[in-house]
Amino acid sequence: MQAPTTTPVRIGLLGYGTVGSAVDAMLGAHGDDITRVLGQPVEVARALVRDVSKPHAGARPGLLCDRFEEVRDSGVSAVCEVMGGVEPTLGYVLELLERGISVVSANKQLLARHGEQLFAVAQRHGAQLRFEASVCAAIPVVKVLRESMLAAGVSEVLGIVNGTTNFILSAMAGQGADYAESLARAQELGYAEADPTDDVGGGDAAAKLAILASIAFHSHVRIDDVPYEGIDRLEAIDVALAGELGYAVKLIAQTRLSDEGVTAEVGPTLVPHGHSLAGVEGSFNAVVLRGEAIREVLLQGPGAGGAETASAVVGDLLGVLGTRGSGSFQHDGYYRKIPIVPRERVVSPLYVRMLVSDRPGVLARIASAFGSHDVSIASMIQRPAGDGEATIVLLTHPAQRAAADAAVAEVGALELTRSAPRMLRVLERS
Amino acid sequence: MQAPTTTPVRIGLLGYGTVGSAVDAMLGAHGDDITRVLGQPVEVARALVRDVSKPHAGARPGLLCDRFEEVRDSGVSAVCEVMGGVEPTLGYVLELLERGISVVSANKQLLARHGEQLFAVAQRHGAQLRFEASVCAAIPVVKVLRESMLAAGVSEVLGIVNGTTNFILSAMAGQGADYAESLARAQELGYAEADPTDDVGGGDAAAKLAILASIAFHSHVRIDDVPYEGIDRLEAIDVALAGELGYAVKLIAQTRLSDEGVTAEVGPTLVPHGHSLAGVEGSFNAVVLRGEAIREVLLQGPGAGGAETASAVVGDLLGVLGTRGSGSFQHDGYYRKIPIVPRERVVSPLYVRMLVSDRPGVLARIASAFGSHDVSIASMIQRPAGDGEATIVLLTHPAQRAAADAAVAEVGALELTRSAPRMLRVLERS
Repeated sequence: MQAPTTTPVRIGLLGYGTVGSAVDAMLGAHGDDITRVLGQPVEVARALVRDVSKPHAGARPGLLCDRFEEVRDSGVSAVCEVMGGVEPTLGYVLELLERGISVVSANKQLLARHGEQLFAVAQRHGAQLRFEASVCAAIPVVKVLRESMLAAGVSEVLGIVNGTTNFILSAMAGQGADYAESLARAQELGYAEADPTDDVGGGDAAAKLAILASIAFHSHVRIDDVPYEGIDRLEAIDVALAGELGYAVKLIAQTRLSDEGVTAEVGPTLVPHGHSLAGVEGSFNAVVLRGEAIREVLLQGPGAGGAETASAVVGDLLGVLGTRGSGSFQHDGYYRKIPIVPRERVVSPLYVRMLVSDRPGVLARIASAFGSHDVSIASMIQRPAGDGEATIVLLTHPAQRAAADAAVAEVGALELTRSAPRMLRVLERS
Repeated sequence: MQAPTTTPVRIGLLGYGTVGSAVDAMLGAHGDDITRVLGQPVEVARALVRDVSKPHAGARPGLLCDRFEEVRDSGVSAVCEVMGGVEPTLGYVLELLERGISVVSANKQLLARHGEQLFAVAQRHGAQLRFEASVCAAIPVVKVLRESMLAAGVSEVLGIVNGTTNFILSAMAGQGADYAESLARAQELGYAEADPTDDVGGGDAAAKLAILASIAFHSHVRIDDVPYEGIDRLEAIDVALAGELGYAVKLIAQTRLSDEGVTAEVGPTLVPHGHSLAGVEGSFNAVVLRGEAIREVLLQGPGAGGAETASAVVGDLLGVLGTRGSGSFQHDGYYRKIPIVPRERVVSPLYVRMLVSDRPGVLARIASAFGSHDVSIASMIQRPAGDGEATIVLLTHPAQRAAADAAVAEVGALELTRSAPRMLRVLERS
């Protein structure tokens, strides 16, 4: 039992942009609650920025500095890394951890690329490294996986972890708009950045999935282990056809643990209407955790935003400060080694759209190509596409990707095929 | 940095029924993971049961005992209380906490009635008390509220926290069945107990809401502070009319923090189609957390079941063992005192159904009764009910309950009114 003390615990900030200034403001606004809960107040000692001469709204005089060493040497117990990027951030974070200073990071690239090294250094020096804010902002999926689900036998994590793409896909489905229009609209409304590559290309989701897979299965999965495809090549016709067939198209990040190892993949995916993820609209994120003991737990909320991300950073920060000297599960043993299963061996139902010459025998040729690769067709629709051509859409039964790739390549090479077939994954009804 | 040790940490179980035996089995099945993560194995030293001579599936020889003292004195660091009930459980838990032995409890009645005393004793003796499993089984809402949302400015928690009633309501909506039929069907399928009073009467949900409100707002709310109504008086006609008006009827537990204090209430409620809670079907639970920084976070999953509850118990147990000596936010200061706002002052839109004589001037009389109490009507439907009678349904704009109660009492007393009006709360679109 400790009585509250007035000696503040000092913390530092690396970065004072949208998230950093929101962290500072939040610590101020909830100062009384925080003091009561921790037993002592929290004081932001120093915040690193690139240029102290620029105005930074909300920063009290004397807070900002432009040398990392000033933050490091200011007597801080913990530092919130909200500057982003891999260089020079990685060096700073390593140096803090090596001095036993705990770090809370909102940096998915850092974690997804260098997590293994960072955890090892933190462990060696008795520092904590928490990273809730690196995945889905205010949705507490990292804490839940790390701390609540340890013995739940989690075997699958899947979700919508990028709000920009979900906003664009909602617009494409709702208004029948094409990708370029929908992206422009998202940019107008501030849901997509001027350079949206990392979001729409799937890289952002892949980094988040690498982090989630690592925690869920206690085995380091790096972003390079996650094959990904974005929505930038998605056509309006596929969203429309999927809708007719009873599916929403979502950018799904999915990882599974099987006897073979870990599979992880990001791509535009057909999600059956009625599935928990089909109804996630606009810029929201949602993650489903599946496991033996928990059946299916869904976490849903805003996956981005300054205050939302800051809320996760502050939650982690208070977690670090509330458990100094021990922390939860900082033991090396959190991670083991599980092999990564290559994408080609992943089994799922698939959607394949083809443009073909509309003449007798076409369906039979196509069916036989799929059959010869052991890919079984669950349903098929054919409709005229004008100019003597027809659009054919297949939904397959669960098939190994390598086999489906081979079948699609064979069909693509037929002289009756008018354009490269388009293949998308389909989520099974749960 | 600690190296793994083979000295096991000993824990005890109070109770070895569905949940207790599942906890034991889960600790066994995930023994390797747990040892790796904690740095040492966990051993169940003793389990208290009422009658050791009865068969208990899964119990190894020598595990079971029928004297509490044997568990208490077996050198345990923590005890999982999964026996339920308030007596003699309360005395056992207090005695453990007084000896500095941490307790993980799945007992909502214990927490909702005696939480304040239990936390004070735990705090005084440096023991932890965790209780994730007491609310919504595998859905980690307690941990998220306690640890992730400390500075998120949570101002509202609402949800479906009882699976039995949600199963019955889903059946009433889907099949148009009446309450008695739907209850019988739920009992057949094992979703309702032989004596369903605590579930269908709303008491179970009220206990859970008391616990959630206490954590969310850092102020002790007891079950007696939560007015509740169950679904046992709900008529099929109200579910059908609500459906026509664009609403699902759900048993909603809702608590809010305002300048006046805490409001908390459980009752059958109209939830607009499209709201995150309207689509929660069958025995699932879902909780929405709203706050300044997080906007709206939804947690959804199975709210009951042996393995699901055990998963939450084991998560808490590992949390306790992983943070021995500190724990998260065990400081007294977690709780403050906030007044409870009486139900009469709560403001919400309302649904009112009346059976009246179908004659000229009726609508005007009713509208004037509501108007004279400052309850403004948003929409109204009237339809013949046979025998010269008519059913009138009103949806009001947000109104104070006391005013609506007075208006309904006035209408109920009119000689043109054929039966007592029925009033239900309506959730506002978020």
